[in-house]
Amino acid sequence: MNEQRLQQVRSNLRLMDLDQMVIVDPVSIAYLTGYKNDPMERFQALYVAADNEPTIFVNKLFPDPSDYVDSIITLDDTDDPIDALAQLCIHDAPLGIDRGLEARWLLPLMDAQAASAYRLASSAVDDARAHKDPTEQQAMAEASAINDQGMAWLESQIREGVTERQIAEGLEAEYRRLGAWGNSFAPIVSFGANAADPHHEPDDTKLTRGQCVLFDVGCAANDYCADMTRTFFFGEPSEEFERVHATVVAANRAAEAMVAPGVTFAQIDAAARQVIEDAGYGPYFTHRLGHSIGLEVHEPGDVSSAHNDPVEPGMCFSIEPGIYLPGRFGVRIEDLVIVTQDGCQVLNHYPKDLECIKA
Amino acid sequence: MNEQRLQQVRSNLRLMDLDQMVIVDPVSIAYLTGYKNDPMERFQALYVAADNEPTIFVNKLFPDPSDYVDSIITLDDTDDPIDALAQLCIHDAPLGIDRGLEARWLLPLMDAQAASAYRLASSAVDDARAHKDPTEQQAMAEASAINDQGMAWLESQIREGVTERQIAEGLEAEYRRLGAWGNSFAPIVSFGANAADPHHEPDDTKLTRGQCVLFDVGCAANDYCADMTRTFFFGEPSEEFERVHATVVAANRAAEAMVAPGVTFAQIDAAARQVIEDAGYGPYFTHRLGHSIGLEVHEPGDVSSAHNDPVEPGMCFSIEPGIYLPGRFGVRIEDLVIVTQDGCQVLNHYPKDLECIKA
Repeated sequence: MNEQRLQQVRSNLRLMDLDQMVIVDPVSIAYLTGYKNDPMERFQALYVAADNEPTIFVNKLFPDPSDYVDSIITLDDTDDPIDALAQLCIHDAPLGIDRGLEARWLLPLMDAQAASAYRLASSAVDDARAHKDPTEQQAMAEASAINDQGMAWLESQIREGVTERQIAEGLEAEYRRLGAWGNSFAPIVSFGANAADPHHEPDDTKLTRGQCVLFDVGCAANDYCADMTRTFFFGEPSEEFERVHATVVAANRAAEAMVAPGVTFAQIDAAARQVIEDAGYGPYFTHRLGHSIGLEVHEPGDVSSAHNDPVEPGMCFSIEPGIYLPGRFGVRIEDLVIVTQDGCQVLNHYPKDLECIKA
Repeated sequence: MNEQRLQQVRSNLRLMDLDQMVIVDPVSIAYLTGYKNDPMERFQALYVAADNEPTIFVNKLFPDPSDYVDSIITLDDTDDPIDALAQLCIHDAPLGIDRGLEARWLLPLMDAQAASAYRLASSAVDDARAHKDPTEQQAMAEASAINDQGMAWLESQIREGVTERQIAEGLEAEYRRLGAWGNSFAPIVSFGANAADPHHEPDDTKLTRGQCVLFDVGCAANDYCADMTRTFFFGEPSEEFERVHATVVAANRAAEAMVAPGVTFAQIDAAARQVIEDAGYGPYFTHRLGHSIGLEVHEPGDVSSAHNDPVEPGMCFSIEPGIYLPGRFGVRIEDLVIVTQDGCQVLNHYPKDLECIKA
């Protein structure tokens, strides 16, 4: 159990007038306790109350958590975990609920009258996880340093006739060679018009001269995730491609330049969006500017117009503007940043101005 | 929209006194509509009512579902999807809820007073999906036929010094070569004492003579999943290993022999468990006997002592008894079966009696 993190979560809960919470996100459970296990479809939870030791509910199929947590309720596949959890809850007080608790558990918990009310309380954990301590910041920087090296390998793979899938499938071994654990998410490798779909999955498309090459990739190293996008061109780009690419780079730089404590996520999103709108491509930037990242690739805290909280020191998120011209091409440029006392540290150092591969 | 499947779900809902339901499982949505999309952390749902056309809620970041569904509500990252869903619901009637609907959506839906009550109703969809029609049965058989060939490849990889990870990483390409789409789940390759952990992940353990070799693997082909386990021995097994292996094979056969319409899942589980208990290894068979399978590797419908429903024609599930001796070895033997009118069709044909690799 990481007592400092647990105290932070309890203190956050008190500010929400909550004395108890059920945490089910396996990554949050690992963050607080050190016990790492993905229970897949089985029930697993950490019940945190103001006064008592946290209790973990875990299926006996999985590794024993006793090195990490003192209070353990072990379940087998024939037990009703909700019964056991409901008995532990303070029935006449509201219960904080983790956002990922599924209806199959939440509705029976309500039927069992486990608590007086049920309130979304994930933000108590999110807030702790969002503020990376120095050790975590160091791990994030190391993962991104490996990702920069991975991008150099990716650029070296650009050649006539190679397929998206070939490059994507080779990346994980390269990450391992560089000291990472593997991919932090399935790599996106998109050629030409495929890059106009922000979520294109690598397929057997062969690279031909005159296509853009978009890599949106990340490695995981020591529990923390990297995530970066660069867009190259194979051959001679059109003037419009150059203009679009330069616009996206400028949007990326404009957003990074304004990150500082007190600036809101929405303002950062707007800074990038303004550059793209001014260039006439506003309708082709079809997603939020970025997302928070850490132990997971996507963590709560969108960098979007809907998120009006200010950023704070220790927060880490992506800045990834893009322009997508359907049927033609797409460009996205993404870095990770960590908010500092007076600005931000950009974790990625791979060049982002347009590089054209001629060979 | 697959009208036949939709009618089955509506008819199942009527039996539960429900006129409306929210389906969120992307696989269930694909099963009913043909629209395949994993929305990751974004909201996606199919609202099914008794009378109107089903309405799909989908983020505009994803492919357009209009080839599959007529009534579409398109969301962007700044919309509140629960607002839109609550407006569509019949407020004075109970609402069926898919088991996977997360608290982050369900609690706000309740706050919006979308319906008069909220009831778990996934079984309406599960029941339809559990009864595979002839086309689906054919696809399941084809996936398992490829999996049999994959097991032959795996057995051919058994040699001194090979690592679990090397074999595991080579399997996906082999599946593709055999005509499958890839793995249906991360393959389990376990040597020696690693096999005593049913969920061991392949690592850099090297194979040495005198170890068992457990492969729990599956391919996905044409949307459907295979899943099979075989346990081999590298070198000369001990008498105890031979006895344990023969016991697990006998448990597997005993369970398969009793599958027929009207027999309960619990009875099938008990048949295998009895064989293992009689041999004195009861405490070392630590998990349920099996799980239902189809579009997903794990579908609702455990083969366990807690599941007292009878099996019915068209149902497909695994039979996978195991014995796990901590620190020593583990043995598991798994086939898929489809219930027929008077028994079952075993989908896997790879030999399951002990094979020892001497070379």
